[in-house]
Formats: sequence, structure tokens, C-alpha cells
Amino acid sequence: MPKGGIEVRAETTGALTRMAHELLTSPELGELLDKLEREIKELPYESDKASLVRVTRRQYDNAVKLPTKLVEELEKATALGQDAWERAREESDFRAFEPHLARILELQIEKAHALGFEDDPYDALLDTFEPGMRSRDVTALFDQLKSRLVPLIQAINERADAVDAAPLQRGFDVDSQWSVTMEVIERIGFDLKHGRQDRSAHPFAMGLAPTDVRLTTRFDPEYLGSGLYGSIHEAGHGMYEQGLPLEHIDDFLGNSVSLGIHESQSRLWENIVGRSRPFWRYFLPKVQAAFPGKLDDIDVEGMYRAVNKVAHPSVIRVEADEVTYNLHIFLRFELERELIAGRIEVRDLPEAWNEKTRAFLGFTPASDKVGVLQDVHWSAGLFGYFPTYTLGTVLSAQLYECVKRDVPDVEDRIALGDFSAIKSWMQARIYRHGARFEPLELIERATGEPLRPEPYLRYIEEKYRELYGIS
Amino acid sequence: MPKGGIEVRAETTGALTRMAHELLTSPELGELLDKLEREIKELPYESDKASLVRVTRRQYDNAVKLPTKLVEELEKATALGQDAWERAREESDFRAFEPHLARILELQIEKAHALGFEDDPYDALLDTFEPGMRSRDVTALFDQLKSRLVPLIQAINERADAVDAAPLQRGFDVDSQWSVTMEVIERIGFDLKHGRQDRSAHPFAMGLAPTDVRLTTRFDPEYLGSGLYGSIHEAGHGMYEQGLPLEHIDDFLGNSVSLGIHESQSRLWENIVGRSRPFWRYFLPKVQAAFPGKLDDIDVEGMYRAVNKVAHPSVIRVEADEVTYNLHIFLRFELERELIAGRIEVRDLPEAWNEKTRAFLGFTPASDKVGVLQDVHWSAGLFGYFPTYTLGTVLSAQLYECVKRDVPDVEDRIALGDFSAIKSWMQARIYRHGARFEPLELIERATGEPLRPEPYLRYIEEKYRELYGIS
Repeated sequence: MPKGGIEVRAETTGALTRMAHELLTSPELGELLDKLEREIKELPYESDKASLVRVTRRQYDNAVKLPTKLVEELEKATALGQDAWERAREESDFRAFEPHLARILELQIEKAHALGFEDDPYDALLDTFEPGMRSRDVTALFDQLKSRLVPLIQAINERADAVDAAPLQRGFDVDSQWSVTMEVIERIGFDLKHGRQDRSAHPFAMGLAPTDVRLTTRFDPEYLGSGLYGSIHEAGHGMYEQGLPLEHIDDFLGNSVSLGIHESQSRLWENIVGRSRPFWRYFLPKVQAAFPGKLDDIDVEGMYRAVNKVAHPSVIRVEADEVTYNLHIFLRFELERELIAGRIEVRDLPEAWNEKTRAFLGFTPASDKVGVLQDVHWSAGLFGYFPTYTLGTVLSAQLYECVKRDVPDVEDRIALGDFSAIKSWMQARIYRHGARFEPLELIERATGEPLRPEPYLRYIEEKYRELYGIS
Repeated sequence: MPKGGIEVRAETTGALTRMAHELLTSPELGELLDKLEREIKELPYESDKASLVRVTRRQYDNAVKLPTKLVEELEKATALGQDAWERAREESDFRAFEPHLARILELQIEKAHALGFEDDPYDALLDTFEPGMRSRDVTALFDQLKSRLVPLIQAINERADAVDAAPLQRGFDVDSQWSVTMEVIERIGFDLKHGRQDRSAHPFAMGLAPTDVRLTTRFDPEYLGSGLYGSIHEAGHGMYEQGLPLEHIDDFLGNSVSLGIHESQSRLWENIVGRSRPFWRYFLPKVQAAFPGKLDDIDVEGMYRAVNKVAHPSVIRVEADEVTYNLHIFLRFELERELIAGRIEVRDLPEAWNEKTRAFLGFTPASDKVGVLQDVHWSAGLFGYFPTYTLGTVLSAQLYECVKRDVPDVEDRIALGDFSAIKSWMQARIYRHGARFEPLELIERATGEPLRPEPYLRYIEEKYRELYGIS
């Protein structure tokens, strides 16, 4: 979009948001739901009709709690806030962003109280991204993770030189990187008849419909991992979007269910599959052929090690490796809970951020630009969003354990270039359900167990102890 | 868009079209217009309020004549029709497209009768693109043009070798073509803070708002003219869109007024300015610098001649030179009038097309692909659209005569790279009025005269007689 188009687009999206809110909160819909709830009493819980009424009721009840004025104010504050954040980040000037963030936070707290909660206002916001999840459960889960990840990271840091990522930094022609990512995302299962990939400043995935899913990626000529793993990550999101039930495209059952479930798909493909030995058994010759002479001296083991190097210190969240990434999330989760609870003030946020960075990651950010201003989320009003990244990461390992249980030779198949078993499993257990079940319910139905950290901790500890020679 | 996304997009645009039609035809709007028409009786014709009521009334009256069912049927038939046309054109198989075109034509005739007309159903359709224009006036105008253009083209064809376009066919690096077009469109006045250019399969211009106007272009490495003049043409459309009154973005006054007026802007920049000597006086050194060694032996006169070569025969409309282009329009205008009047049947269209091509252009198309199937318009239901291309062409010369009258040194300024006088003139006389006046009214107000062919005929005859040495 040209710079000068921002204002009109903000007005347009504001108008559409209002229209959607008005439709969703119309008294006719409320009356219809009352009537239908009596009708579906005898129907099975999983049936289309019962599910549609149940899920629509949930959307309706949440929407009617939000006054149109608040919805509009939030839309306006975040449109301005994002613009202010962008400029503030460029100048590394938190003070220029502070009044905007203060206003957004104020409206978020208002929103939390409008939505209602049991004991923690943060829950109301978290629930909009991860229905059914409570912050006490997140805290308990994160504490368990922390107690095992922090010592693991310490052990890794002591042996930082054991893994060498230099092969990925040999300079890689961007057009060939493009071809490689196209080959990889198509091979792992992203359907190019119903989706496409383009280049942009930031990687993202967006499903306009299951039949039209757009991915973007970006390339760093100095680092092969950036474009390749960015594309695989977005393709993971994209396959979920392509697998959503097309017959429900016009109702709420056709939606993805939560950000955590979404992230479980992107992380699974990016990290568990994409950074595995079988993946490289299949793809290494192809990647070598795409960059003649660049990687001829590297074998599967060398590639596997290079793509799993743990960075230290890990300054920017989106560039963090899969182990330290979670620490970035813990930090943001704790800070935003404090902000929502009013236990820290916006003006004290940079200091709080730096303090927590020292505690969690062991360094002080060089500037607010690479510190408290590094993420777009708060400027966009996305409080309660960050924890879903780690929830998805944890879930990805739990799902993959189930895939391996049900398809014992899945990794042999991957090594031969056949990735279809994973997508089929996800299609049957996750994708096709859309938003029919709440996330925690979907996880139990898909895996037979509640969300739990053990599979992830097992995965991450086994992988990195072996990689770094930690006993 | 990925191939598989077509169906859902058709449903989405169908739904939006229905919603817009329902809003526009709502009884509340009708009552409001009745009430406002009494209120504005005393207001000046040009005033915002009077104009808004008058223009809205026109939109409302036309919309209420169209039953929602017809609007939906048209939307559906053209969505399917365009897909069928694309495939039929690829295979050069008119019979595959025939039933779709027959259905679209049937609906167009229904639409013409629903809209109403005095003596010619074609007028009802023409009026949707060029309000106030009647086909008898178009016929009279086209006859005048024909009587002068046909002998001119004959004379040119007899001296076809007098002009040499070979310098444009020396092979031009596409990245450098991109840079050149960006430099040109910015210099002539397209505002890149409120617009952008991208590459696509077909050149087009689209104004999302005056603050956000998108252009696309395409490049032919074998022919420099294709991308350069495509970009200038679209930038002409784009400057008009950027100049529309922003304060009327949410009402009908903020729209462009007609396709003919739009085309007058694109043709003016593409042909009258872009294919002139002063243009090349300024741009030749820049274009030479963009393609080192390629055009060093060409002077301004050589470039001026090369970009004005008249192609013979001129097979494809969109690739035709500015002289024979009009013959393509006459041909289509006559055929679509016959179709709407029921004087020829769809099944006889290919033969009728070929016959008229022989009569107007002197050759028989090698296949339906490059004959009757070459244009998208009819598959999209755009009957009555073609004449606006020539109306715009004629008007472009009339407007430029006025610019030269008001700014006598405009061509000296162009030669120095200052194109601002033309845009300022258009801003004051055309752009800023949006849809406030009907096209014929706007032309009279802008030029002091009705639309007339003399300036165009003078321009084209003087230019091409000199170029081809015709006495």
C-alpha cells in the first residue's frame, strides 16, 4: 500500500468492522439463537446444527458485551498506534509511542471488563485468541517449561561452539532461494492450485478461503535459513487454512479454532519436520543442486546441525531459535499480565522489559528498538496473543508423537519425500473440524489427552542434548 | 489469485454486489431523495448539495429499474462467461464460448429494456458507461472520423517503410525497463506517495481512493514500447483517480464521471504527450542511459519516428497504433449494436467479425483467437463500453488544444521535463469535478465547446502526414 493510503484504509476497515459487529449483535440473531437452542436440545453435540448454534452463541455473547463505541475506539486507537509504533521503532523512541500504548492499554482493560472474567482480567483477553484457556493454566505450564528449558539453555551456552551454522551463511542467490522454497512448500503439501506464495517485507499466511490461501516470505541473501524456514512456517499455517471445511465457509464452523492450534501447525512443519534429519535426507541433494558449488561439502548431518544452532544471545524474538524462543514469550506474557493488572505503568515498561530480558536471556537490549519496541502486537491491541506461540509449540510436539504412534514409519517416508501422512493425520484430526470444538476439547479429541508439556520437553531435550553433547 | 479460488471470489463479489444494490435501491433512500429534491430547489446547480442529490437520483433511478434477480443473473453469467472465454480463447474455439455469450447477450438485452431507452436499446447500455451519450451521436462522430481516417491509413500503408520502429526492438533488459517506467510516471505527475506500480499479466489502473491508486504494467524484452507506453497510459488513468475530490470519497460525487473522460486522460498522456518530440527531447538521454550502448545512435527525431510507426495490418486492438486503433473500435461498435438489436445471431458472429475486419482493416484474422475472441469485454457483459475508447481519444486532442491555448509554452516546458502545466489544467477543469457534471456537460465547461472531432483529426492528420511524407 502506498504510504498516503493508510488513512482511507483505516476508515474502510473501521466501517467494515462496524458493519460486521452490527450484524453479529443484531437482535434478530439473538432471537434466532434462543429459538434454535430449544430445537437442538435433542441433537448430538458434534452434529453440524448443534455445533453451529453453540459456536455462534459464543461469538454472539462475546460481541454483545462489547459496545460499538468501544469497538470503534479500539479500531481507531490501534490504527493510529501501529503507525506511531512504526515511527517510534525506527527512531528507537519509546516516549513517542507511550501515549498511544497507554490509550490502547486503557481500552484493552475496558474490553476485558466488558467481556467479563472470573479472577483475572487477562483471561478475558487471552480467551479471544485461545478460547477456554486461563492464565493460571498458562502460568503453570510456562513454569514447568521454564524449570527445564533454563538449565538446558545454560548447558547449551556452555557448549555454544559445538554446533556450526556457518554453512548457511555462504551467500545464496535469492532467485534460487525462491525456487527452493516453492519446491519445498509444494512437496510438503501446500496446494498451489488453492494458494500461492509471494514476497513481502514480513512473512505471513492468510486464508481468504480454503480455496485461496496466500503466503508471503522474504529472503536474506546472507542466511539461507531465513527464507526457507519462514516459508515452511507459513506453509504450515497455510495447509491448516486449506484444510478447513469448505462447506462451512459462510458460517463460524469454517474458521480456524485458535491461534495456538494454528501455531502448532506452523511450528510442527518448521521445526519438528523441517529441522529434522529425515527432512534433510530428502531435500539436501535438491538444495545442493539449487546452489551449485555452495554446499557440496555438507552432508545431512552437517545440515541438520547447522539449521539447529542455538543463537546466543537471542535478541529478536522472530529470529530466535526454537529453544530460546520460548523465553521471549515468557517475558512478554509476564509483562502484559502486569500491565493489564495495573501493576506496572506504561512509562516504566522499557525498564521492566530490560530487567526481564536480563533475567530470562542474560543481556540488556542495546536500545528500545531491539527491546520493548521490537514487536508489533501491543500497538495493534493484541494483548493475550503472545502465549499462543508457546502453547502451539508445546502442542506441535504432542501432535507429532501421535502421528508417529499412528504412522510408525513416518520418518522413513519423509526421507523419501513423502510427507502426506502428516497432512492426512492433521486433516482428519484438526483441519476438518474448523471451529467446531474448543481448542482444549479439540486437543483431547485429537490426541486422547489434555495439552501437556512432556512431549515437547522430551523432544527438545533429546534433540539438543544430542546436538550439543550434553550428558 | 490461485486458479482454485475463482468460485469463492465469484460468490463473494456476488454477495457484495447484492448488498450494494440493496442499499442503493432501499425505499429509505428513495424517500430521502424525494424530500431533498424539494429542499435543494433554491440552491445553485453546481453546489455540493444540489449536485449530490442530482447525481444520487440518477444512480438510484437506474438501480431501481434493475431487479435484484437480473443483477445476480448477470453477475453469475459473466463470472462463468469470463472463465469460458479464457479457455475458448486459448483453444481458439468460439463454439465453446457461444452459449455463454448468448446467455450474456440475452441478459444485456433484458437489462437494456429494464433501463429503458428512446429509440435504440443500445443507448441504455452505452449510457451506463458514458452518461448522456446516444448511439446516433456516436455513429455521426464515427462516420466523420472514418471518412478522414480511412484515406489517411491508405496513404500511410502506401508509404509503410517511411517510418522505422526497429530501434525499439533491440532487446531491452526488463529491470531497466522497470526503472525507466518508474522515472517516467513519477516525472509526468503520478504521485507515488498515493499510488504504486506493480507488474502483472495485463496493464490496468485502479483507484481504491484518491490516496491509493494502483497501476500495473508488463514488459516485453523484445519491444521497448510495450511497457513504456502501457505505463504512461495507466498513469494517465491514475492521475485522474488521484485528482478526484477526496472530500467526496464516500458519496457519488467522488467518482470518475465516465469511461470516455477516463480514456481521454490515458490517451492524452500515452499518445499526445508520450509520443511527441518534446517528450523525447527530455527523456531520450535518460532512456539511453538506462540501456547503455543500445540507443546511442538514435536521436530525438529517430525515437519520435520509431514510437509512431503505424502497424499494418493491425491485428490485435490493444497492440494497435493510434491511427488504426479507431478502426478496431468502429468494428466492435457496429457489431455490438447489431447483436443488441437482434440483427445478427451469436452463432454468426465469427463470420460477421471476419467480414468487418476485411472491410475495415483489409485482412482476415488467422483464427478466432486473434479475431472475435481477442477482447474480454463481451464475456464480462461490457456491451456499450468499446465506443468510449474512441470518444476518449477524440476528447484527448480537444483537451490538449485548450491546454496549449492556455499555456502557450507547454511544449517547451515538457522538453525541459516540466509536465506540471497539463496536470494542473486537468485538475482544475476535469479531475476535481468528479462526477458532479455529466460528461458532455463537463466537456463544454472544460473546453467551452461540445465534443467535436476536428481537434483530433487535425492532430492525427498533421502528425502522420508529416511523419509519412504525405502531401
